[in-house]
Amino acid sequence: METMQAVVKIEAGKGAVYTEIPIPKISDLEVLVKVRTTSICGSDLHLYNWETWSEDRIHLPRVMGHEMAGEVVEVGKMVKNIHAGDYISAETHLYCGRCYACLQGRQEVCLNLKILGFDQDGSFANYVCLPENVIWKNDPLIPKDWGSLQEPLGNAIDTVLAENVTGKTVLFTGCGPIGLLGIGVANAAGASEIFATDINEYRLELALKMGATQIMNPGKVDVIEIIMDSTRGAGVEILIEMSGNAKAFAQGLEALTPGGFASLLGLYREKKVPVDLNRQIILKGIRLVGITGRKIFATWNKTTQLLKSGQLNLDPVITHKFPLSDFEKGIHLMEKGTCGKIVLYPPD
Amino acid sequence: METMQAVVKIEAGKGAVYTEIPIPKISDLEVLVKVRTTSICGSDLHLYNWETWSEDRIHLPRVMGHEMAGEVVEVGKMVKNIHAGDYISAETHLYCGRCYACLQGRQEVCLNLKILGFDQDGSFANYVCLPENVIWKNDPLIPKDWGSLQEPLGNAIDTVLAENVTGKTVLFTGCGPIGLLGIGVANAAGASEIFATDINEYRLELALKMGATQIMNPGKVDVIEIIMDSTRGAGVEILIEMSGNAKAFAQGLEALTPGGFASLLGLYREKKVPVDLNRQIILKGIRLVGITGRKIFATWNKTTQLLKSGQLNLDPVITHKFPLSDFEKGIHLMEKGTCGKIVLYPPD
Amino acid sequence: METMQAVVKIEAGKGAVYTEIPIPKISDLEVLVKVRTTSICGSDLHLYNWETWSEDRIHLPRVMGHEMAGEVVEVGKMVKNIHAGDYISAETHLYCGRCYACLQGRQEVCLNLKILGFDQDGSFANYVCLPENVIWKNDPLIPKDWGSLQEPLGNAIDTVLAENVTGKTVLFTGCGPIGLLGIGVANAAGASEIFATDINEYRLELALKMGATQIMNPGKVDVIEIIMDSTRGAGVEILIEMSGNAKAFAQGLEALTPGGFASLLGLYREKKVPVDLNRQIILKGIRLVGITGRKIFATWNKTTQLLKSGQLNLDPVITHKFPLSDFEKGIHLMEKGTCGKIVLYPPD
Amino acid sequence: METMQAVVKIEAGKGAVYTEIPIPKISDLEVLVKVRTTSICGSDLHLYNWETWSEDRIHLPRVMGHEMAGEVVEVGKMVKNIHAGDYISAETHLYCGRCYACLQGRQEVCLNLKILGFDQDGSFANYVCLPENVIWKNDPLIPKDWGSLQEPLGNAIDTVLAENVTGKTVLFTGCGPIGLLGIGVANAAGASEIFATDINEYRLELALKMGATQIMNPGKVDVIEIIMDSTRGAGVEILIEMSGNAKAFAQGLEALTPGGFASLLGLYREKKVPVDLNRQIILKGIRLVGITGRKIFATWNKTTQLLKSGQLNLDPVITHKFPLSDFEKGIHLMEKGTCGKIVLYPPD
Repeated sequence: METMQAVVKIEAGKGAVYTEIPIPKISDLEVLVKVRTTSICGSDLHLYNWETWSEDRIHLPRVMGHEMAGEVVEVGKMVKNIHAGDYISAETHLYCGRCYACLQGRQEVCLNLKILGFDQDGSFANYVCLPENVIWKNDPLIPKDWGSLQEPLGNAIDTVLAENVTGKTVLFTGCGPIGLLGIGVANAAGASEIFATDINEYRLELALKMGATQIMNPGKVDVIEIIMDSTRGAGVEILIEMSGNAKAFAQGLEALTPGGFASLLGLYREKKVPVDLNRQIILKGIRLVGITGRKIFATWNKTTQLLKSGQLNLDPVITHKFPLSDFEKGIHLMEKGTCGKIVLYPPD
Repeated sequence: METMQAVVKIEAGKGAVYTEIPIPKISDLEVLVKVRTTSICGSDLHLYNWETWSEDRIHLPRVMGHEMAGEVVEVGKMVKNIHAGDYISAETHLYCGRCYACLQGRQEVCLNLKILGFDQDGSFANYVCLPENVIWKNDPLIPKDWGSLQEPLGNAIDTVLAENVTGKTVLFTGCGPIGLLGIGVANAAGASEIFATDINEYRLELALKMGATQIMNPGKVDVIEIIMDSTRGAGVEILIEMSGNAKAFAQGLEALTPGGFASLLGLYREKKVPVDLNRQIILKGIRLVGITGRKIFATWNKTTQLLKSGQLNLDPVITHKFPLSDFEKGIHLMEKGTCGKIVLYPPD
Repeated sequence: METMQAVVKIEAGKGAVYTEIPIPKISDLEVLVKVRTTSICGSDLHLYNWETWSEDRIHLPRVMGHEMAGEVVEVGKMVKNIHAGDYISAETHLYCGRCYACLQGRQEVCLNLKILGFDQDGSFANYVCLPENVIWKNDPLIPKDWGSLQEPLGNAIDTVLAENVTGKTVLFTGCGPIGLLGIGVANAAGASEIFATDINEYRLELALKMGATQIMNPGKVDVIEIIMDSTRGAGVEILIEMSGNAKAFAQGLEALTPGGFASLLGLYREKKVPVDLNRQIILKGIRLVGITGRKIFATWNKTTQLLKSGQLNLDPVITHKFPLSDFEKGIHLMEKGTCGKIVLYPPD
Repeated sequence: METMQAVVKIEAGKGAVYTEIPIPKISDLEVLVKVRTTSICGSDLHLYNWETWSEDRIHLPRVMGHEMAGEVVEVGKMVKNIHAGDYISAETHLYCGRCYACLQGRQEVCLNLKILGFDQDGSFANYVCLPENVIWKNDPLIPKDWGSLQEPLGNAIDTVLAENVTGKTVLFTGCGPIGLLGIGVANAAGASEIFATDINEYRLELALKMGATQIMNPGKVDVIEIIMDSTRGAGVEILIEMSGNAKAFAQGLEALTPGGFASLLGLYREKKVPVDLNRQIILKGIRLVGITGRKIFATWNKTTQLLKSGQLNLDPVITHKFPLSDFEKGIHLMEKGTCGKIVLYPPD
């Protein structure tokens, strides 16, 4: 039996191990992919830490990881359009294709959704097994190190471009890796002002590099006052909520102009977040959208085009590159927040 | 000095009096209108009860009321397009016309917004004084008794038609007067199913008359189970939140299908409403909009066309008609909830 | 070898024959369906008449027909979600699922599109062979006679609901079968006025039955004058072009209000239609959309919901029902225009 | 009587004269503005040449010009929000504010529209008289030389941003001054590819400077082949038609991907343009919009924000600056096409 190296969550509780396990077997509808790059998502950290939701959802053992790029090495008998040798990435929202949401073209919120690396073995490994219908063939013009970043970038793109931001004032609450990618997208899209808040100074500096025009630490300055001064009292036209922090969200809504638009991606620690619906949403006529996953595959196409055109440079966001065996270094950096995106390289 | 009858909030605390006061004087930009019909809004009840927000906002004495129809009897020198004799209603969101929101065509969320009957003397009177820029000339084909209902109907129209509902499943949480008007709109617009919830059986019966296909008292039945059964587990495509009740809103979000749309009009008692943002909005990819006021005047035009075409019958909603002097009867019915819309008629 | 009855286009030139041919064999990805009802589309008439485009496109012999409903009797080995006994209809735009358009969720304009009954044998037969990915399971609440009408109704729904029509004034230029279905949709959707033009008085009468509020024969009355009078000089807010007649289209654009919306479904005899782009589209700020096929399967879902809810009655449109063997009676009625929709029933 | 210098169209027929005329008198609702910069629009050239439409529309004598910036020197008695000393530009679509279109918030297609410099004396003069409701206060951060370019830039912005272009492939047919501004907007907005066609090599070079990624002279190369090669056969996602040339429009539609979007600004010489509606619009499911004027004032706000943020540099488009007295040099350059935008400076 052939084996491979993989990062596996074995036991309930904090942690994961880098170990040797069998190479997975594909079904007739699946393909086997040799992983070249795979990056760490915030949700990987949550799983590593075995946060409360994990126990109900995750069946152990589980190979972690979902952001990936690699080469197809084997295809199932019923696979029609993918071939060995294709250089691909994976949509990580594994969708059924036949529920109400899928039939509406909203596969990202499939009623039978499974997530790669959570509900099925993931990409922190030499090989990963994927259903054909989530495969995206990568454009050869995109730098190899960016391959696995297309997935989180797709989140950022859908969050930022849910509304046209060109010539608009935008506030990012939260400058974690997807927030940073989003700032790059807003800058590429011609936002006129990009305000960014975070309590992490390291990430605020990265925000500047990605195109933020004004960075603010809400622990140190009066964010609302600064924004109102800069917008002649109107407030920002677009809020991009990337923090998953209830206070940041409330501050973002406060900064939003009447008739404005809010796009929410960050997930909250609290089961229920207190929201001033009357004053901050209803009486201000706010439109709001929750973003999860990516449009399959419209977003992937847009992601490709943004990257290959050179309109968007991801290098400043990639702060660390490690061999897969050092994944825990990455996890710890994520925990401290002294990083942007971390790319892992499985052994050849 | 000429005088008139009016319902005036004179003192801080519960109550209002029907009394004689001077007819107001118009400025050069205003018109004076003889009120023919004026109806009671839920917010009038809040003002009558002197709820907590009142003290900060309302300057006493104040003539109450804002939903109205009547005839112009005098026009200011700088008024250009309105003439004595015009039969009109008033947009009650008095907007400045030059702030950021107004210049965006979003006058309903004007940064300098005043509300008729709250920030300026209202229409529970023989005469009301109105700025020219809020006047809407009423269509003669619309029944006279419906004149003052165009304003709340405009709320209902903007809430229900924020998304196309034709052939869609819709849930109304809350069957107060605007909820009932909204059900009529959804029915006229060809919603395929109209679920309606309320704990008030009187209003559930009215909901049926206005076109609800399934009425549910959440105190008695399992709303989610019924909706999921009726929609093969998909949930409803549109949520219209008219209750201002946090539990109803949470239930509505629970019933909403992934990728669905929620339109919020009801105002909440709580300053902050706990919302399960992660599970009910973000991971479901929900779009949500807060509605206040009406598009000025696009909504008025649509309201007119719906009413004069006969697509929408308001009679079942108008449960009571009183002389203005009996306004307190109306207030008490509103408090009990044993009414739909109540129309008041000032003495001639 | 088992055989069946079918309407087959055998030779180049006008005509088709009702004859006996072998029952088709399915591939691993296909299903075999026993046709219960199949209706005549305008394009079937064009094919019957062997219009100029036919020669280049159609490979003979070809079984005609594409609007259908029936029962699955056999499924291919790789078919996953369809089973023998399912009562289904077919999306007739056979799409590849992997081109740019399909990946954008726009399967109806697939770059490799094939049309049932034109590029592949169709449904004027006892049996038809269909790829799994175009199968729609019919709702049991929908009357059996309406089964095959879901396909053209889907066209009508996408054309009419491309813009929200509730409370709006709408003009239909052309009252052929899809125009008639569209009028039903606009009426169900609460359009405030439905103007309809045609030179065929038979169909104008049907338009009235489907909900038109004003029917006009442009050969007899001044359509523009009537519309301008009825709309106080504003013009209609929505144009639904169903005629494929260049004059009717020009008249429709003339009747359209500045800022209005035009939805085009009718196909034109002329290769190039002269359009007054400056005055009728650009300087009026018109939005226009071309409709073909249906959203797969979002439109099918909406179609189902409209029909099963009773919001839309198709009976007035179904003017004739014939055994399949009498298909030429139907073709001739279509040619004369003295019919609405014609449903054919294959022998059992 | 005080006089000023102005470019006046005095006689029917080609030409205009630079001459001395009285300074206009304002009404109570108007302001008098000292013009600082005014630029030449393509429509000024048409008026100068006295093209066929002119005779019916223009009442002579007429001061030409409408793109302008300057200082308010006098305000009418009924003017409320503008003051002497304000540095302003003018929306040149003089709207009534009370017709159907205006009440819908579509003032740019007002049913009673007048155009500055055509239906009322314009800005090729020391002073121009303007109604209060078209005044836009200029942001002091915008370079003075760009002041009068906000108006045509607004056209370009509405044409390009009618659909979100970020990460999309865009084709500009026509690189006249507004085409060039549009290319700048598309580039600022993060379009992934900007194809541009023109038969004028001078302007193709300017297109490159404004951000076009591929310039093509359709007289020399096969535009469709190049675009199909570059897009893997899909075609471009967005067409921006700026040429007013029927062949260019047809080529643009041919290059457009199924499901794509076309935005039309260029006006055509032909009264009716032959359009392949079937194949190029309907069967491709194209959405199309005609653009005229600008959203009042939402577009002006976006224009301001794009310019002051530095996201868009207009300098490459401004190829010539002349004193107003040399206006005919500008007209002749426009006629030859060897220019971008030409700014005129009235004498102090």
